[in-house]
Amino acid sequence: MSAFGPLFLPDAMREAVSGRAWLAAMLAAERALANAEAIAGAIPAHAAGPIADACRPERFDVDRLAEQGRGAGNPVEPLVRELTAAVGGEAAGYVHWGATSQDILDTAAMLVARRASGLAVEWAGALADRCAGLAREHRMTPMAARTLLQHAVPTTFGLKAAGWLAGVAEARERLVAVRAGLRAQLGGAAGTLGALGDRGPAVLGLYARELELAEPALPWHTNRVGVAELGSALAVLAGAAAKVGRDVVLLSQTEVAEVAEGAGGGSSTMPHKRNPTASTLAIACAVQAQAQAGVLVRGLDQEHERAAGPWHAEWEALSGALAYAGGAVHAAGRALDGLRVDAARMRANLDATGGLVMAESLAFALAPVHGRGEAQRIVAEAAREAAEAGRNLREAAESGAVPGLSSGAARAALDPAANLKAAGALVDRALERYATRPGGSA
Amino acid sequence: MSAFGPLFLPDAMREAVSGRAWLAAMLAAERALANAEAIAGAIPAHAAGPIADACRPERFDVDRLAEQGRGAGNPVEPLVRELTAAVGGEAAGYVHWGATSQDILDTAAMLVARRASGLAVEWAGALADRCAGLAREHRMTPMAARTLLQHAVPTTFGLKAAGWLAGVAEARERLVAVRAGLRAQLGGAAGTLGALGDRGPAVLGLYARELELAEPALPWHTNRVGVAELGSALAVLAGAAAKVGRDVVLLSQTEVAEVAEGAGGGSSTMPHKRNPTASTLAIACAVQAQAQAGVLVRGLDQEHERAAGPWHAEWEALSGALAYAGGAVHAAGRALDGLRVDAARMRANLDATGGLVMAESLAFALAPVHGRGEAQRIVAEAAREAAEAGRNLREAAESGAVPGLSSGAARAALDPAANLKAAGALVDRALERYATRPGGSA
Amino acid sequence: MSAFGPLFLPDAMREAVSGRAWLAAMLAAERALANAEAIAGAIPAHAAGPIADACRPERFDVDRLAEQGRGAGNPVEPLVRELTAAVGGEAAGYVHWGATSQDILDTAAMLVARRASGLAVEWAGALADRCAGLAREHRMTPMAARTLLQHAVPTTFGLKAAGWLAGVAEARERLVAVRAGLRAQLGGAAGTLGALGDRGPAVLGLYARELELAEPALPWHTNRVGVAELGSALAVLAGAAAKVGRDVVLLSQTEVAEVAEGAGGGSSTMPHKRNPTASTLAIACAVQAQAQAGVLVRGLDQEHERAAGPWHAEWEALSGALAYAGGAVHAAGRALDGLRVDAARMRANLDATGGLVMAESLAFALAPVHGRGEAQRIVAEAAREAAEAGRNLREAAESGAVPGLSSGAARAALDPAANLKAAGALVDRALERYATRPGGSA
Amino acid sequence: MSAFGPLFLPDAMREAVSGRAWLAAMLAAERALANAEAIAGAIPAHAAGPIADACRPERFDVDRLAEQGRGAGNPVEPLVRELTAAVGGEAAGYVHWGATSQDILDTAAMLVARRASGLAVEWAGALADRCAGLAREHRMTPMAARTLLQHAVPTTFGLKAAGWLAGVAEARERLVAVRAGLRAQLGGAAGTLGALGDRGPAVLGLYARELELAEPALPWHTNRVGVAELGSALAVLAGAAAKVGRDVVLLSQTEVAEVAEGAGGGSSTMPHKRNPTASTLAIACAVQAQAQAGVLVRGLDQEHERAAGPWHAEWEALSGALAYAGGAVHAAGRALDGLRVDAARMRANLDATGGLVMAESLAFALAPVHGRGEAQRIVAEAAREAAEAGRNLREAAESGAVPGLSSGAARAALDPAANLKAAGALVDRALERYATRPGGSA
Repeated sequence: MSAFGPLFLPDAMREAVSGRAWLAAMLAAERALANAEAIAGAIPAHAAGPIADACRPERFDVDRLAEQGRGAGNPVEPLVRELTAAVGGEAAGYVHWGATSQDILDTAAMLVARRASGLAVEWAGALADRCAGLAREHRMTPMAARTLLQHAVPTTFGLKAAGWLAGVAEARERLVAVRAGLRAQLGGAAGTLGALGDRGPAVLGLYARELELAEPALPWHTNRVGVAELGSALAVLAGAAAKVGRDVVLLSQTEVAEVAEGAGGGSSTMPHKRNPTASTLAIACAVQAQAQAGVLVRGLDQEHERAAGPWHAEWEALSGALAYAGGAVHAAGRALDGLRVDAARMRANLDATGGLVMAESLAFALAPVHGRGEAQRIVAEAAREAAEAGRNLREAAESGAVPGLSSGAARAALDPAANLKAAGALVDRALERYATRPGGSA
Repeated sequence: MSAFGPLFLPDAMREAVSGRAWLAAMLAAERALANAEAIAGAIPAHAAGPIADACRPERFDVDRLAEQGRGAGNPVEPLVRELTAAVGGEAAGYVHWGATSQDILDTAAMLVARRASGLAVEWAGALADRCAGLAREHRMTPMAARTLLQHAVPTTFGLKAAGWLAGVAEARERLVAVRAGLRAQLGGAAGTLGALGDRGPAVLGLYARELELAEPALPWHTNRVGVAELGSALAVLAGAAAKVGRDVVLLSQTEVAEVAEGAGGGSSTMPHKRNPTASTLAIACAVQAQAQAGVLVRGLDQEHERAAGPWHAEWEALSGALAYAGGAVHAAGRALDGLRVDAARMRANLDATGGLVMAESLAFALAPVHGRGEAQRIVAEAAREAAEAGRNLREAAESGAVPGLSSGAARAALDPAANLKAAGALVDRALERYATRPGGSA
Repeated sequence: MSAFGPLFLPDAMREAVSGRAWLAAMLAAERALANAEAIAGAIPAHAAGPIADACRPERFDVDRLAEQGRGAGNPVEPLVRELTAAVGGEAAGYVHWGATSQDILDTAAMLVARRASGLAVEWAGALADRCAGLAREHRMTPMAARTLLQHAVPTTFGLKAAGWLAGVAEARERLVAVRAGLRAQLGGAAGTLGALGDRGPAVLGLYARELELAEPALPWHTNRVGVAELGSALAVLAGAAAKVGRDVVLLSQTEVAEVAEGAGGGSSTMPHKRNPTASTLAIACAVQAQAQAGVLVRGLDQEHERAAGPWHAEWEALSGALAYAGGAVHAAGRALDGLRVDAARMRANLDATGGLVMAESLAFALAPVHGRGEAQRIVAEAAREAAEAGRNLREAAESGAVPGLSSGAARAALDPAANLKAAGALVDRALERYATRPGGSA
Repeated sequence: MSAFGPLFLPDAMREAVSGRAWLAAMLAAERALANAEAIAGAIPAHAAGPIADACRPERFDVDRLAEQGRGAGNPVEPLVRELTAAVGGEAAGYVHWGATSQDILDTAAMLVARRASGLAVEWAGALADRCAGLAREHRMTPMAARTLLQHAVPTTFGLKAAGWLAGVAEARERLVAVRAGLRAQLGGAAGTLGALGDRGPAVLGLYARELELAEPALPWHTNRVGVAELGSALAVLAGAAAKVGRDVVLLSQTEVAEVAEGAGGGSSTMPHKRNPTASTLAIACAVQAQAQAGVLVRGLDQEHERAAGPWHAEWEALSGALAYAGGAVHAAGRALDGLRVDAARMRANLDATGGLVMAESLAFALAPVHGRGEAQRIVAEAAREAAEAGRNLREAAESGAVPGLSSGAARAALDPAANLKAAGALVDRALERYATRPGGSA
């Protein structure tokens, strides 16, 4: 990852997609292969022990493997050479038996993906919980809804948070499902399990079980649908987190000031700044996660039985998509952690347009009298006149500027609460759905 | 779509995402809204009839609506004006009651998506069936597996087709699932269902039922996870189709000539050309589908209660992702339709390297004698010498160039069929899986 | 383009990338080819006239060509057939002489690109002019600069507009340069000009001159650097326009209200809304333009002498990138056209934080006394205390809360104008640069 | 970068975009700032020395800066704190005087970009030189041109290499131009150079000169056109390299075997494999470079005076785009380095279709007799018949199967050399252009 990785990514995630993690995962695959083959009788039973013993990450160096792997185009070829040397004796001949580099590297990728996506799922759960908490707490806290960033009509902050929750929970649920289907890879040189003879399918099953990965019907060397679906799930989750970040950034604006991150960031030169830093990093992470996921999707049309390029582009892309999607949900979670919500300011902003935000409601109240089109015209006119006169739509309406409506009816129509009858019910629906869906209890 | 749309897209798909289709879908949404509101008592019962009557596409002009919608930033605003005028009388006041433009346009998008993705699912099913047919028919037809486009070891054409099948079927399955979850949109100006008072949730339920779309827990004006997941599913399906196209293009090369499209394309200047045109279009379609899906994923972080830009970018992107994903599976299906498979040429190509493709097998046979590393070294050496001598590894091996192996053992190790024991079983697994998974019988 | 194209795209642009435009361009290429070949003596002189005569767009139907082109994978093959029939007689045999489909289609693409990018350049010029006008007019109009959307320190609206200008003008300049280099395509079946014998290079030169396109050193059938550079220039220009749109949307927010689009858009349900619609469309257009440009960049690695897929994906992508980049600059131009700038509100927002925005300035004034780190600490502390006390940093500072600074010095440091000394000079630099750079006078 | 970075990237490039390189560049910016300010009189002259002295990379730790920068959202804030402490005394107060974090980080990015893009330019030059060498050497070596991967007509390998050359040289030229315009960044908190009073512009000029970067008219904190143009140039260069890699992979196929990489890669299990590894890595690198460049283009619409997210996403994206574009040209260069070109095999492949590849030529020869349409029909028919009879178009034509053509005329028309008259001239044009264009002599 980047020079400034720690800025974006929690340590646990950096570790989960690190060279060390990839190396350990490759060795886990070699070990599981030897064990599975010994059980299935594809290699002598006594060969498995020495191989498993030699599969210790501290013996190998990722950078050296990568450098020596340049010729072969992947790091497994030198790894197998070093591992074979480390095993020694007769067992050495059974290292990597019947496998191809891609078997080991793809399986390692899935092990890395399982661990890293596990973090992303966990952090997405924490983020969703925070959204749910805000939805519950601010179920009926009125604020201005904004469309095209303009005040529209009232909503509640709880409903906004429920919208965040819905997005994050749905995206997380999908990642949970994709994660459960991560598959072991074993096919041999060309996906035929050729060198294992009749025992191929049995070895495949045992190998997958050993690694606690799903057993594929077929080797998937150039069927990358699973990889692309993983990438897509990560991109979508990152985007759902970015939506939270985006709204927090907008609500934190100096002029809006309805929320503030608990631990807003300082500036190298402006002593007063309290930047929505975590939200900002959530947005930045999502951009990277989506770019890397795009590589995985673009890479679907891999040639024949092993691709010349698209497969090689996956390693960095997968690490990046996992890490940055995790980084996005983690950062969005930090943005909401201790979020200061200023309900009074929300109310003040809502009132600041002097009732303009209730214009739709007023038009609805007038509709039975004048027909809706005419009602909208009248209200728009009254709003314009009030604005020009520096008056407030509420005052104007209550003082009779809206023909056909008593001042009492006008007052009722201009009460934000009147508009929010369904908002609470919608929040409840979202919380209920979150409570009952698989993964919803994270 | 493009000037050369018909080249890429079947008529049915062009129609499904056309302006006419969008218009009809918007009117279906307005009609369903009026009906739902009448049933729920949100508008007078007698208003629904005239509204429904007026919702006839032939009355409206998409281009005019789009042009008049430039000011408002969407075509619903002028549509509602025209529809209101068309309804006339008291009922006119109840057109679009409590809805916002995005309710209608998002719902229309989902109706368009349902129809267009239905075509894509159908064509993906036909494509999968063709893959399955080839897998069955050529279960044991030997051919060279190619890794990094080099001969590796033998495989069967059936196993290659089974790999296509697995990818297409998985991607199709995902689209089927996403399609089943397409949701109606109804939230009013800011997603609070504010103008419908207590009746909001009831109207939402009735509206969704009327349209046979799923009922969301919440309006999803700026929770675009569902849209992004639809886009992702389309991008992945298109990529799975492109993989088929890619392999067909490669196998059709003049020097390879193992398959030929049934209806290969001609050239404007070369009388002899038989181009793999359908495969080519499948690849081209996938590129577009993925670009458009990228817009949908990128657009996840929509601001507040209605986005200023990302939402507007979705309309073209959704149409494009649907149409081109459909185009990709359709074209790949055409590529396989009547595909001429030349098993003799496959065998000849396999043999052309004079046994080189069996080098791995030979090394495996030698491993018990010399240890695997040494065995690989010996075989590589023998292969190099044979190549330099213009001889064939088979001849070399059978005439004793591989120390430690009887000529009989060498012959056995060099028989492609020996390597293919598991291939048939793998094909069977893929066919079985296809037969039993939901959607597999399409 | 999309069902809602007119919303996004001016009529002139829709026309410029329409099927009609592509058809006319293909015919212009065939006509120029015949003329060039007649002059060079590659075909009989009398054949050119009848061919040129037959190259009338009204004789052909794009949809039919596209449909009939499905088999060949492009629309030129049927076009040549129809054109040959239309020419008749002996001259018919010299239609499309020595050319391949890609020669005609690539040349047509460049003609379409020239016309459509001409519109984009023109609109970008108008947009830049409006930016320049705003920069000039508001050279010293103070407003809050915002970093991470938080008030930072004062700037001027003129400097903000100068920043827009710089981006748009640079991006436009690049497009102008790329546009000047658009190349004719002519290579024959495989880029060797084979069928033209010795006369190939001469014909190529005449053909390019006839079309007023640049003459390439080589046919560029699979060297798509020029196409990718065009796409990139369009993507960047669109992004520069989106930056303008983004800022206008943010400045138009209800709570900010510093600018308003002259012709703000209405809403289908909220009578009071004045949406920043043009800015919104600029953002949406940029997203599409960038996605389509991405297809062109991704398509660089085209196989051998004609690609199977990436070339075919270009047609829609090029039309889209051109149209939407043009749409973006046009929409951003509309956003600025008649933009209402509320300088009083800018000043009021600047003052709203009670001097907080001057905290950096205060810290700088204090730095000589306490050292900079300590100065920043003191000011941050004072700001925090003032905020908690509901006081204003200005009042606090002037009443002595900042030790070591006289109230006069505090007042001076807290005057926004003091911070803006260089702003005017920077605006002048930008305007000067714009006035003197090629293309700057548009 | 990735766990397997060394596989893709030369050490020099890994170093050029490493954390160490970024740190050194940030310190170079701080040092230049102090020097410029001292010269301009913005800070005391004696402050510059101690600051410059303290700007030694070995004093700082990138990981720690990144971690401590999480709160502020960037690593400059902690760097300035540490640097200030390291300077000590009175001079400490003048560290980072008048600058903002983005000034330092953007300037550092441009310094990193200059060094890394310098490597990319150099390697692109070496790659272009190799292409030129092949073009020269194989100017008239006949081979089959392939369109849609099918034999089309003859070309020469020199012309193919000239096409590679044209693409790489054009893309390199663009990068050279963009590189020459890389700009220093200095604007202070909000781009107004506010804290520097009247001296701002002078300091900006001195600072840029000190760093040998271009002086911008304005600070470009949120005008990212320059960054996006750099990204685009890198993406296009990488794509031009991938085109080379793609063709080498295709020409290396077992059945084609016209070229082989000098140092083809081995396999972990197949002793005979000689994979086109360098070409494969070139393709993979291009995919990553383009994805990262996409982040830079997407990030153009940065908010107000400093963006909340898009800017932060640039750091990794810029490093990645630089490194992988460099990796792509480097790998493509390695692919051509020692490339074994088998002219005999090229000729044999050309002949393998028994003259089919000359069908166009035959049709042209027949055209004066029968008219072109009819001539094409006759030849297509003859080709089909010959194919079915297992005969060769050449034999068929020479034995009279093509009415209207003497066997001598048929023989002449079927001679590949006849088709290649212009090919040599085209190669010469490309070589000449390469020799005379700026940057062409690399």
